[in-house]
Amino acid sequence: MADTEPSLDDRRFMATAIRLSRRHFGLTGTNPSVATLIVADGVIVGRGVTAIGGRPHAETQALAEAGERARGATAYVTLEPCAHHGRTPPCAEALVTAGVSRVVGAASDPDPRVAGRGYAILRAAGIAVLEGVLAENAGDQLNGYLIRSVKRRPEVTLKLAVSADGMIGLTDEGRVAVTGEAVRRQVHLMRAESDAILIGIRTALADDPELTCRLPGLDSRSPIRIVLDRNARLPASAKLAVTARLVPTMVAALPETVGAERRAELESRGVTFLATEAHEGRVALPELMEDLGARGIGTLMVEGGADAAAQFLAEDLVDRLVLFSSTKEIGTGGVRAPITPATVPARFRLLRESRFGADIGQEWVRAH
Amino acid sequence: MADTEPSLDDRRFMATAIRLSRRHFGLTGTNPSVATLIVADGVIVGRGVTAIGGRPHAETQALAEAGERARGATAYVTLEPCAHHGRTPPCAEALVTAGVSRVVGAASDPDPRVAGRGYAILRAAGIAVLEGVLAENAGDQLNGYLIRSVKRRPEVTLKLAVSADGMIGLTDEGRVAVTGEAVRRQVHLMRAESDAILIGIRTALADDPELTCRLPGLDSRSPIRIVLDRNARLPASAKLAVTARLVPTMVAALPETVGAERRAELESRGVTFLATEAHEGRVALPELMEDLGARGIGTLMVEGGADAAAQFLAEDLVDRLVLFSSTKEIGTGGVRAPITPATVPARFRLLRESRFGADIGQEWVRAH
Repeated sequence: MADTEPSLDDRRFMATAIRLSRRHFGLTGTNPSVATLIVADGVIVGRGVTAIGGRPHAETQALAEAGERARGATAYVTLEPCAHHGRTPPCAEALVTAGVSRVVGAASDPDPRVAGRGYAILRAAGIAVLEGVLAENAGDQLNGYLIRSVKRRPEVTLKLAVSADGMIGLTDEGRVAVTGEAVRRQVHLMRAESDAILIGIRTALADDPELTCRLPGLDSRSPIRIVLDRNARLPASAKLAVTARLVPTMVAALPETVGAERRAELESRGVTFLATEAHEGRVALPELMEDLGARGIGTLMVEGGADAAAQFLAEDLVDRLVLFSSTKEIGTGGVRAPITPATVPARFRLLRESRFGADIGQEWVRAH
Repeated sequence: MADTEPSLDDRRFMATAIRLSRRHFGLTGTNPSVATLIVADGVIVGRGVTAIGGRPHAETQALAEAGERARGATAYVTLEPCAHHGRTPPCAEALVTAGVSRVVGAASDPDPRVAGRGYAILRAAGIAVLEGVLAENAGDQLNGYLIRSVKRRPEVTLKLAVSADGMIGLTDEGRVAVTGEAVRRQVHLMRAESDAILIGIRTALADDPELTCRLPGLDSRSPIRIVLDRNARLPASAKLAVTARLVPTMVAALPETVGAERRAELESRGVTFLATEAHEGRVALPELMEDLGARGIGTLMVEGGADAAAQFLAEDLVDRLVLFSSTKEIGTGGVRAPITPATVPARFRLLRESRFGADIGQEWVRAH
């Protein structure tokens, strides 16, 4: 079998590995959620996914399950195995030691400490390596990690619910439910898979949202909540402030506009401040994104409102776009959506489209 | 004046800038605390230190204060000005726009997005640049940032109090105060300047410490508290667990040894888990340090006990060593210190020695 073309089995096993890698999405801290399968004579003899918290890595676990059966087997890895030394051997070396004879990889690792060196270690040991199998699918899963490694900022997902007449579900007068219960559950699942959620202060004032994940069994997976709030107007009585000791709340403000008393009032609730810089009177978003990345935030979901969404789009900081479309009309008093399915720019590629009850959800990713 | 030799004034102004840079040490998030002075005709006309939270940068503030007087002036920067673009112009460009005619720099920035490019932007604009003035002193201040940029882990400071007979101040029977009140205050100040503190589980069990900064006015500067606790033995009634919603507490444990109930019990207090890998039955420290760095922790102080200190020393993970020596003897029942002033390895260079009441404090840094 030539080493340059994946077989049908290679593609099947890799697809299985990619599905497995999704299991700990949003749960692996600053490490990406990846998966490894060890396959001997067409049978899966070991499987691993990055453990909750980010360690141990997938390869370690898959090799432990396979034991001696790893000798001469094929390993399927959704991301290039790590190559840098800590106290435990890097995964590339672990694969060599275990005696696998072939490694099929999906995405390459852009981390400068890996970047081709993981595959090189394998090849130097005489292992046949086939790279890039279903790389695009794996890359869609690993997008946050890849973006953080290369651009040093979180992957940004913009989520909006849009009515049939092109309005978003939130007005200054308070929450308007545009979409139904199935979308609500999907949004909570998306929250559980995000490191942080961001909303603008107008949405925080109008809706007083909690922004937690309230799905059974997933309530411990609520992400950090961030309010884009240049003048730190978030009331100390807001749910986001009151619950800040249970789920972290951060206020991204311009330090020079926030008085010491205002700051102390919010800090006494457990709210933390993100110091930001101003650009034309607004919070400079690229700088804020850089600081969030440095804090280990790999995925950020922007939940609105129209202002925040428009600013992220204008700065070209949206990597993933999720629009839920309703057949309902909002009519007068609605807030015009900054983007609708009909106006998605060409730089986005439609990844999937699903039905959520009476509503439709569409997901686009930006071409890299 | 030749551009290759700093004048006496250059060294004086840089020393002033380095002192100023210390003001926000430990308060600037993931950005380093640096300072800028703008000097016109021998007079300081603008000064800036990285703002609390990390933004705005020092240069921006110093140039704002100097205004038109920056034209033709000399800028003293303790770290190479940043060169990468966000929404606000990078500091190197801001210095060009302001019309300074000369820039004197101390440390170079190892961040791959800067790494010489900051100085290159200045030179390309015809500005005279003198690098490396008091670079060692600035580097001592910026050590945490430099280590995190290059080694991708926090700067580790090991602090121990050692009795005259070479024992540390903590035994399994509980806290023994080896050193006096002046050392206590100094340690609390060191806590305020750290992003995180780490202790071993035996110390946590024996002493039930709080590990907060309890100096007047600095109580909001308590760092994250981390317990090296492979089996997650920290009691839910420990002060570190009880106060976890006020000051974050993290338990570095081996995921496979921690039961779901134990985990839930600590998590319900607000304690978070750091998943670690095992090496010969202990927590693999290099991997743990890498994960802390990825979370934005730039400085870590190890406060004991003997086991944890010995493990960090054996792994060569100690960048800065602070020993407080007492004239008291502990005698039988004491725990032998893993290191004393007499046994500091040659790779460490003595940086300073000060008297704290009846005790002596010595600080070493590892040669890079």
